[in-house]
This record gives sequence, structure tokens and C-alpha cells, in this order.
Amino acid sequence: MSDYGQTFALWRDAAGQHWPAYTRHRFVEGLGDGSLPRAAFLDYMVQDYLFLVHFSRAWALAVTKAETVDEMRLCAATVNALINDEMALHIRTCADLGLTEADLFEAEEKPQNIAYTRYVLDAGHAGDLLDLLAALAPCVMGYGEIGARLKGEATSESYADWIATYASEDYQQVCREVGALIDAAITRRLGTTPQDSPRWTALTQRFTTATRLEVGFWDMGLEAA
Amino acid sequence: MSDYGQTFALWRDAAGQHWPAYTRHRFVEGLGDGSLPRAAFLDYMVQDYLFLVHFSRAWALAVTKAETVDEMRLCAATVNALINDEMALHIRTCADLGLTEADLFEAEEKPQNIAYTRYVLDAGHAGDLLDLLAALAPCVMGYGEIGARLKGEATSESYADWIATYASEDYQQVCREVGALIDAAITRRLGTTPQDSPRWTALTQRFTTATRLEVGFWDMGLEAA
Amino acid sequence: MSDYGQTFALWRDAAGQHWPAYTRHRFVEGLGDGSLPRAAFLDYMVQDYLFLVHFSRAWALAVTKAETVDEMRLCAATVNALINDEMALHIRTCADLGLTEADLFEAEEKPQNIAYTRYVLDAGHAGDLLDLLAALAPCVMGYGEIGARLKGEATSESYADWIATYASEDYQQVCREVGALIDAAITRRLGTTPQDSPRWTALTQRFTTATRLEVGFWDMGLEAA
Amino acid sequence: MSDYGQTFALWRDAAGQHWPAYTRHRFVEGLGDGSLPRAAFLDYMVQDYLFLVHFSRAWALAVTKAETVDEMRLCAATVNALINDEMALHIRTCADLGLTEADLFEAEEKPQNIAYTRYVLDAGHAGDLLDLLAALAPCVMGYGEIGARLKGEATSESYADWIATYASEDYQQVCREVGALIDAAITRRLGTTPQDSPRWTALTQRFTTATRLEVGFWDMGLEAA
Repeated sequence: MSDYGQTFALWRDAAGQHWPAYTRHRFVEGLGDGSLPRAAFLDYMVQDYLFLVHFSRAWALAVTKAETVDEMRLCAATVNALINDEMALHIRTCADLGLTEADLFEAEEKPQNIAYTRYVLDAGHAGDLLDLLAALAPCVMGYGEIGARLKGEATSESYADWIATYASEDYQQVCREVGALIDAAITRRLGTTPQDSPRWTALTQRFTTATRLEVGFWDMGLEAA
Repeated sequence: MSDYGQTFALWRDAAGQHWPAYTRHRFVEGLGDGSLPRAAFLDYMVQDYLFLVHFSRAWALAVTKAETVDEMRLCAATVNALINDEMALHIRTCADLGLTEADLFEAEEKPQNIAYTRYVLDAGHAGDLLDLLAALAPCVMGYGEIGARLKGEATSESYADWIATYASEDYQQVCREVGALIDAAITRRLGTTPQDSPRWTALTQRFTTATRLEVGFWDMGLEAA
Repeated sequence: MSDYGQTFALWRDAAGQHWPAYTRHRFVEGLGDGSLPRAAFLDYMVQDYLFLVHFSRAWALAVTKAETVDEMRLCAATVNALINDEMALHIRTCADLGLTEADLFEAEEKPQNIAYTRYVLDAGHAGDLLDLLAALAPCVMGYGEIGARLKGEATSESYADWIATYASEDYQQVCREVGALIDAAITRRLGTTPQDSPRWTALTQRFTTATRLEVGFWDMGLEAA
Repeated sequence: MSDYGQTFALWRDAAGQHWPAYTRHRFVEGLGDGSLPRAAFLDYMVQDYLFLVHFSRAWALAVTKAETVDEMRLCAATVNALINDEMALHIRTCADLGLTEADLFEAEEKPQNIAYTRYVLDAGHAGDLLDLLAALAPCVMGYGEIGARLKGEATSESYADWIATYASEDYQQVCREVGALIDAAITRRLGTTPQDSPRWTALTQRFTTATRLEVGFWDMGLEAA
């Protein structure tokens, strides 16, 4: 299993069966064995583009909530990685269908998509950087885990481009860096035994709720099939 | 039809069939004719309590985005009406089932609930007071319309307490005051012919998206039956 | 010395000589012995009205960052006390000079005023409720201490109305309630030995910076003499 | 005079004598003729580093308030230019004195510095992207004008490194791009005759207040001499 830091490992455990419900969702397995209908994938790509727009906004919000230069720089770098690198996959894939980036940007967000991104943004506005990071982590690291696993397990080439994006060393490095950011941010605010902090449960709940909303996102993807 | 101001009437028209899909939803009709299963109603009341918590937060956010004393005072008064009056219905109803307010506060939010409240909050953070008011309006005024209509049309006493709350002169007065607030806020920022403003379409879309999310909220209520 | 809770007492101690520099500032002593020029007082009242506008916005922001019903209700009640009660003193006093509330609202904010209120608001946006409360506390409790002390020590009737407002049982009760809110919010997030939390120093610095900005506010008042 | 877009030109005119009070401040002239005491310059560099931290946060906030991909990308790029390029001048200059970046980050912010940065951040939180851009513009463009002018007029080499940074083609390009961003954002929200919008006056006041706070920032710099 990928090593994205101590805090992530604890939060993932605390999410219980919600974590595999997300990372081994039928949508995900369909990416690996090629059984996912192309229409469902394309609908997902459009929604995921919109997701990335608001996810980038959430990482930008993190810049405003950082307390150290290192926190600021890494959050700002992540905004750029999202806007300039990860979105490129979506733009490229959708261009093959004749959809321009403007078409993607103007597409209608589905409720499950709205639920997830706005929950993350509100976690940041309501709390501090830790609340925001706990809501951001499931997407960043979950996709890293999925990419790394499917790279070895995929039995179909149908979605090789998608798998390669998240299995790439670049993306895995983002996951490790975000994991290190979270570990350092936790130590800075909760000390070296964060599980003893009264905030620990609330933070695991943030992570778990975001994980549940990831499951809803995949469900949405299958509904479009 | 109730008169909650000029802007509301225009936004409601722009929402097209989404508006009656919300205000004449099967859940609503079930409140009027008593066909709504009690279990669905109670599940809805728990979710709606959580909704009001975050809706109150959104009206508090409006206080921080007001530009005049009148805007500030009315938004602050609305926070209080929500926290102290409207929530009382929910606490009273749920107390009959043995649920304390603490139980309500700790209940798990469903995704459709998260989608709606966090969308409204983000509308406020992303934009100015108008963006926020356009997202707040469908709930405030829609419930006013529903209450006023069911007061005359209801054929069952099953949900008379709920209907009386929203049909009450107090609640209707809130709707008229919020309508006047919106009209004044629009004139202040967009002038006397707001439909000519380049922002008009985006504001109607905010209103329409919030209306769609209201439909999802009722759907969620029926799913619990 | 007034008892506004355990946390406040610790934060006040941590502020060192900045605390008496604020609560025993020459401006304050001039309110007690009547030596403060009337022009300075009136200029201060105009600026303080604007201060209260933004201070109310900061308490409204606190509503959006609350994690319990009690936190929400007390923050919302404080917004109302500020907008409806405390501001009334300013409106009444300034009306005697022929200034309407609209005149007050449109007055130009001085830089020291901007520095203080926007610092408090940003403390809330950057951090969680504790960061915001640490920045809000010096004003609330400092005025409580000053009012209570001058009630006994004042040798002049010149500013009796001002002193009576902050010495009043109503205002002292606000201070005690805010003190209890802070104590509970601290325990909820940092546990029962908050001084051991890694965040403790940052919170005392928030309180101290806000106290320094209070000193600047009184300096501004004297400059207008 | 530099061409940083139509809106900037109008806002600069509306700021009246506050604009030259800022761009031709005695501190600025001292940079050009070398009469500025080194101690004042170094104190300014420490404060300006802290300013850039919060100014970067404000540009990150702009990412969260963007309504188009272009707005998002340019705001994100500006965050990076500030954090990675402009701050480098400050780190390099202060390193010569034995100050590390950590020393800079931990330095105590002066009230005039707090006033300016937190005002800008609050402009963004209170309003929409236009309110934020109007508060951001005076710093970005004012430094561009000062750099371009001093490049031709400076009679001393004492502060050549500072002048070269802001006179550089890179920095001038940032000013032109931000000017184009503002023009497009204005047209998108207020139409092609923005001066007819009811919001126009409020936006010019935002710009003027930020300009006044720039004057206070230079005053602060001289006080340290």
C-alpha cells in the first residue's frame, strides 16, 4: 500500500469500509477491466473537470489559511498542478469529443458533484487548515492509491491514459508531498500525539464524510451509463 | 400568488418548470393531503434541522457581506428568526419522538442536504451579497408560497403544525421583508433595470440551481419513506 | 478585578504591559476625570460606530464558524447586542451633534480603525473559531474592565453615559457570557490543559496583537483632540 | 505614463491627489536619489516581506472568487509570481544582513502594514472579485509606475536592485496582464460602460482607500529611519 504519511494512514483506517467502498468502487474496477461504458466515462470526465475547478479553489483557500511559508508554497504549488497538469488530461480527453474547455466550464454540475466540492470549501471556511486538509485528502490520496493499484492490476487498455495520469511518478510525488504537508500541519497544531487531541474525532469525520461523497461521485458516474 | 417583491417574481419565472417541481413536489402534496408517511416526515425534520443550522450560517455570512445598516440589521434579524423561531418547530416535533436537540445536531447529514447548504454558503464566499441572496431566496420564499397555498388547500390535519408555521403571518412577513431586502440590494448594485446587467443571467442561474437542489431535498425526503 | 473566565485571565497575563497600556490609556483616564477634550470624544464616537459595524461582522463570522448550537446561539446573540444595544449609545450621542446614523455609516475610517477591525476579521477567515475569539476578546472584555473600574473611580460626570454603558449589568453579563463561551470553546478544541497545546502561543499572540491595536485606537482618539 | 488598462487609468484619476502622494512619496524619491537611510530601507524590506505574504493570500482568495478559467489561471499565476519571484528580492536583500526567511516570517507586523493587507483581504471576503481587484490594484500598478519612472530618473545606484525588480520587463508584464484581467472582469460584470454602474463609486473608493493605505505604508517606512 502506498505511503502517503502517518496521518493519512490513520484517517483512512478511521474511515472503515467507506474507504474501500470508494477506492474499489465498481466504477473504478470498470476503469481497470475496461467494462466501464465509454459514455459513463465521458460524462464523468466533464463532471470531474468541474470538480477540479472547485477543488483548485479549495487549495487556493488553503493558501489563505496557511501559517508557515512551507504550507503556503506547497498549497500554491498544488493549485498550479491541478490547473495546469491534471486538468490537461480532461481537456485532452474531451477535445477528442469536440468539447472545448469553455464547453466543460459551462456544463451543468450534478448534485453529487456540488455536494462534494462545496463541502470541502465549507470545511475550510468553517475551520482552520486542518479541517480543510482532512476534507481535501481523500480525493488526492485516493486517486493516488487507485492509480498505483490499477497500474499493476488493469486488464484492459481502454482507460490506460487515465490510469497513467494517477499512477505517474509526478502524481505519486504530489501524494507524498501532500501527505508530508498534512503530517507537519498536524504536528504544528496538535502536537506529536494528535490522536489525544479533542479535535481528532472531528477531523476523522471530515475525512470520512469526504470519502462518502467520493462514493457518491462514482455512483453518479455509473448513473450516467 | 404571494407578493414577495419584484426580483423574486423575475427569478421565479426564470427558474421555469424547476419552480413548480419544487413547490408542488409530491412530498409537498403529501403534507397537504396527509398521504406523506410519518417516517418520511420525521426523517425530513431531522435533516431540515441540520439544514437550518447551515442556512443560519449562510444568513450570518450575509451580515458580513452587507453594505448598508439596513442590510446588516435585516440579515442579523433573519439569523435570529431561524435559530430561535423556525428551529423551535423542529425541536418540538422531534422531542415528541424522544430526540433531543443534541441528537438532531449530531445526526448524519445526507448528501442532498450537504449539496444544498454548502452550495448556498459557497455562493456567498465566491460572490457578493447578491450571489448569496439569489441562493438563499428559493428556500425562504418557496416555503412561504407552500405554506400560504396549503393553508387554503390542505385536506388533512396530519401536518397542520408544519403548515401553520409557514402560513403564519410571522413567516409571511419574513418573506416580504426578505423580498424587499433583495429588491433594495439589487437596485443598489445593479440599478433600476437589473435585467440589463451582465450579471443578471448568473444571478438567475444561482436561483435556479438552488431551486433544483430544493427538489433534490424533497426527493431525499421521499426516499426515506 | 472582573472575572470573565479562566482563558481570558491567562491571555491577559500573556499580553503583559500591553494590557494596562490599553485599559489605563491616557484616553481612558480622560474619560474618568473628564480631561478628555469633547472634540476627541466625538471623533472617537464616530470611529467607534464604524468599528462596531465591522466588529458585528466579525461576530457574525463567528456564527459561521461555530461547532455547537450553544456557540452559534451566543455568537448570534452578540451580533444583536452590538447592532441593537451598543450602537444605540453612539447613535444617541452623535444625534446630539446633528449626525444621523447614515452620516456615521458614511464617515471615513481612519487607518488605526481599519487595522484593528480587519485584523479581527482576517483572524477568523485564516483560522478557526478560537483564532477569531482570541482577536475579539480584548475589545469585549477590556471595555468591561474599563467600565467597571471607572464606575468606581471616575471623578467627573462628563462621560457618565459612556461609563454607565460599559459598567452596566447588561454589559458585564455579556463579558461573563463571552468569557464562558471562550472557556468552553477552548476545552472543546484544546482539552483541559490548553496551555500544553502547540496552538497556545499563537492564540496568546492573536490576543496581544489585538490589544496592541486597541492602544493604537486610543492613540488615534487623542490625535483628534 | 504606463498603460495598464482602461479601468486602472480611471481609478487612478478618481484617487486624485492620493495617487501622487503614494507614487511620489518622499520614501520613493529617496529610493531614486539615494537619500533614503539604509536602516529605513531594511526595516521596510522586512515589513514588505510580511506584506507579500498576506498579499499572496489575497491573490489566492481571488482564485476562489474567479468566474472564468482565465480569471482563475491569471490569479493563480500571480500568487506564484509573488511567492517565488518578488519575495526572492526580499529574501536576497535581507540575507545580506543575516536575516533568514524564517526571521522575516516571524517579524512583528506594524499597524500600518496590518491595516493595508487585512483591508485588501476583507474587501475580497465582503464583496466579489471586482471589490478585491480594486483593492489589489494600487500596489501592483503603483510599484510598476514607480519602477518604470525611477529607472529613467534615478540619480543614485543605492537602491538599483529594488528599482530593477519593478522596472523589469517581467514585472511590467505582470502589470499589463493584471490590467487586462481587471478590464475583462469589469466588462463581464458591469458591461461596457462601467462608469454608469451604481457600483462604480464604491469601486473607486476601494481603490482610493488602498492608495491611502499605501501612503501610510511609506510613512511607516520613514518613521523607522
